[in-house]
Amino acid sequence: MQAWKDYQAQHKDRFLNELLDLLRIPSVSARSEHKPDMIRCAEAVKARLTEAGATKVEIYPTEGHPVVYAEQITDASLPTVLVYGHYDVQPPDPLELWHSGPFEPVIKDGKIFARGACDDKGQFYMHVKAFETMVRTNSLPVNIKFLIEGEEEIGSQHLGNFVQAHKDLLKADVVLISDTAMLSLENPSLDIGVRGLSYIEVEVTGPNRDLHSGVYGGAVANPITILAKMIASLHDENNHITIPGFYNDVLEVPAAERAELGKAPYNEAEYKTDLGVEALWGEKGYTTNERTGIRPTLEVNGIWGGYTGEGAKTVLPSKAFAKISCRLVPNQQHEKMTELVINHLQKIAPAYVTVKATPHHGGDPYLTPINTVEFQAASKAIATTFGKAPIPVRGGGSIPITALFESALGCKTVFLGFGLDSDNLHSPNEKFDVANFYKGIETIPYFHQYYAELKQ
Amino acid sequence: MQAWKDYQAQHKDRFLNELLDLLRIPSVSARSEHKPDMIRCAEAVKARLTEAGATKVEIYPTEGHPVVYAEQITDASLPTVLVYGHYDVQPPDPLELWHSGPFEPVIKDGKIFARGACDDKGQFYMHVKAFETMVRTNSLPVNIKFLIEGEEEIGSQHLGNFVQAHKDLLKADVVLISDTAMLSLENPSLDIGVRGLSYIEVEVTGPNRDLHSGVYGGAVANPITILAKMIASLHDENNHITIPGFYNDVLEVPAAERAELGKAPYNEAEYKTDLGVEALWGEKGYTTNERTGIRPTLEVNGIWGGYTGEGAKTVLPSKAFAKISCRLVPNQQHEKMTELVINHLQKIAPAYVTVKATPHHGGDPYLTPINTVEFQAASKAIATTFGKAPIPVRGGGSIPITALFESALGCKTVFLGFGLDSDNLHSPNEKFDVANFYKGIETIPYFHQYYAELKQ
Repeated sequence: MQAWKDYQAQHKDRFLNELLDLLRIPSVSARSEHKPDMIRCAEAVKARLTEAGATKVEIYPTEGHPVVYAEQITDASLPTVLVYGHYDVQPPDPLELWHSGPFEPVIKDGKIFARGACDDKGQFYMHVKAFETMVRTNSLPVNIKFLIEGEEEIGSQHLGNFVQAHKDLLKADVVLISDTAMLSLENPSLDIGVRGLSYIEVEVTGPNRDLHSGVYGGAVANPITILAKMIASLHDENNHITIPGFYNDVLEVPAAERAELGKAPYNEAEYKTDLGVEALWGEKGYTTNERTGIRPTLEVNGIWGGYTGEGAKTVLPSKAFAKISCRLVPNQQHEKMTELVINHLQKIAPAYVTVKATPHHGGDPYLTPINTVEFQAASKAIATTFGKAPIPVRGGGSIPITALFESALGCKTVFLGFGLDSDNLHSPNEKFDVANFYKGIETIPYFHQYYAELKQ
Repeated sequence: MQAWKDYQAQHKDRFLNELLDLLRIPSVSARSEHKPDMIRCAEAVKARLTEAGATKVEIYPTEGHPVVYAEQITDASLPTVLVYGHYDVQPPDPLELWHSGPFEPVIKDGKIFARGACDDKGQFYMHVKAFETMVRTNSLPVNIKFLIEGEEEIGSQHLGNFVQAHKDLLKADVVLISDTAMLSLENPSLDIGVRGLSYIEVEVTGPNRDLHSGVYGGAVANPITILAKMIASLHDENNHITIPGFYNDVLEVPAAERAELGKAPYNEAEYKTDLGVEALWGEKGYTTNERTGIRPTLEVNGIWGGYTGEGAKTVLPSKAFAKISCRLVPNQQHEKMTELVINHLQKIAPAYVTVKATPHHGGDPYLTPINTVEFQAASKAIATTFGKAPIPVRGGGSIPITALFESALGCKTVFLGFGLDSDNLHSPNEKFDVANFYKGIETIPYFHQYYAELKQ
């Protein structure tokens, strides 16, 4: 549509500057000291949605961080699209590895560097600007609703209750999310699903106090050593996960689909060079794309215990800790898997120590098959603005709330992601390419148009 | 000697208050921000030695923290005792586990609670007060020298050079150290030696940046998992250390000596209750006392990597770290052992990661056999004030400088320790029993007297 193109060309710089302002708010949901920033960020999102043309915009408090809701209902006979995104971000640590402040966005070599640039402020904001484009050019082909939450990075703890309590408000025909990546602008791809997540924290306690490692070392189990042995035992020599029953519910992907997924461009030498590793690691019998897409994994996200400061301290600590998460694939259920992992850790704990394992958060895996109207509308939109149809892929990340949308609202979710794997999500120097930001704003209106057409 | 007893009874409270003042100085040698406190502490030690009656007292700067030297040379024909101690302390972390401030000493149930109460301010200060007792009662039976350093807790990094450069100044017939423990006031014991130490830090690097554990998890080696596997592999199922050659230089202790050491009172049930553990851990084929006395050990003193803050972060970190130390027994040499451990860690590192291992500090093990004049003088002193001869034991801790004293000064070291294993050395709530402090001050003059007699 020429009108869209013209409007976007005219407001290009403003779109970008508004995003930079949003990125300046340190909305770290995991840290209680950022509670005021979370509220400030929710208010900013509300203001931007109002300016963009939403007729009803509201902040809903939850027991955690607030949810921002907005809508523009044009015609009850049109299909309704619910855009979901999140304004919260991951903690920025380790701070010393950032080249510029995580909350002082800079544009360098065509990339926006800031925490949340891609995940997910930059991506949900494309929807706000695509919406503005359609409203201001009087060409909104659907009814649209926005649900922008503040707890995605901590497992959408209170969104489930919110969705259950507001089923009518949120009623929609499809959920649209931009919180994933594509292969590249040259090789656009479209996720047919995301993995689920099970996240736990483990505390291993040995002696009841820190001990002198000379006086007691060798005679009392060191909880760090025991935790290391427990972690080491979780993968066998083929890097299969050893927890009994871990793979029981995994729906094997048919050979034909594996072959289709295998067509995604992948260059092992480039992949290794980008990561700076000599050798790749992973479950025997699967390719890299399969390991990150169709297989469940178990990763240690953090470990700590004993003396971790400058210099040396000869302590045999009382406790050691780890944060461990599993990515899940259909049909693994996160609650069942969390219980399985916790029970296993407690079972393998030797009598020398006590192990306390507690769940952090989780979410079920989710799929939107290629043959659905929802997937096809997205695929067509990408084909229109990129000049080539997207490659269907399986996303490795997790968006815990998608399974709930399906059960509570009865509609499928489309993962229309414009990030790149190299965007350093959850890492220092997170970035989002300016070109991807604009490409997203350009593509999104076509999704709405094609979806409205396909639904007629 | 009644004169000693009377003097000490008269000045009892002052002795204790002076120690409390010394404990208020946070002389943490491992932390650069405490450099001014280290200087302040050295000056306080100098002032106390001067007041106690030393005729020459001097602070010697080193490339690290300063050394305090003092002497009282009465008669060139008398033997000379060099008292060694240290005014630096271990870092107080984890602070939240202290019941009172680590540098705000309190006396509760007859115990002095403070970092350094036992290790080693409380113990070296017994010598200052014992010296004062002998000087003020005109009964010093030996020439006495003090060498109180500020880097024991970080491996006496610069004391070696200092000793080599001041051999004449430090010339002595015996070195006397109170920096170890005895079994109890009811069952006094005397260390015939201390273990050596080898301390290294390991850095495992996987990918060149922190990664999103969903996008990359399962396809790239996680350095925490690899470090855990490396640590797990260092002990076999019998808790023997698996590093090839680790035990090569261990001088097996003869059955007769093991039998003698086995006479030390030990109650496994009490030991477990005190530590709050259900089961003990250790090298198969050895008793608890042997595991902490005559056998070398390997302990992880600290581990960290990834996200360790509040909440959850789904990161696959770039790096993981550990601090690992070994306790050594005769005839293991710390430099050789450090190299052996570092080489082994590099050898077992898989191609997925790079491993950097660097030495922190170390020291050789040391023995002063029962049949030496030095041991006998100490044994007799304890027998006099405790009413029973001490049980000879092997100390589990390390005093890295002792081997150097023997090689540079040509004299043996006596470990006249008055601490208890339960003193929480290197842990929160370090304490020193007031009774042990006074018992040490009472006993030390007898060591000097008996040593002078035995040397005649």
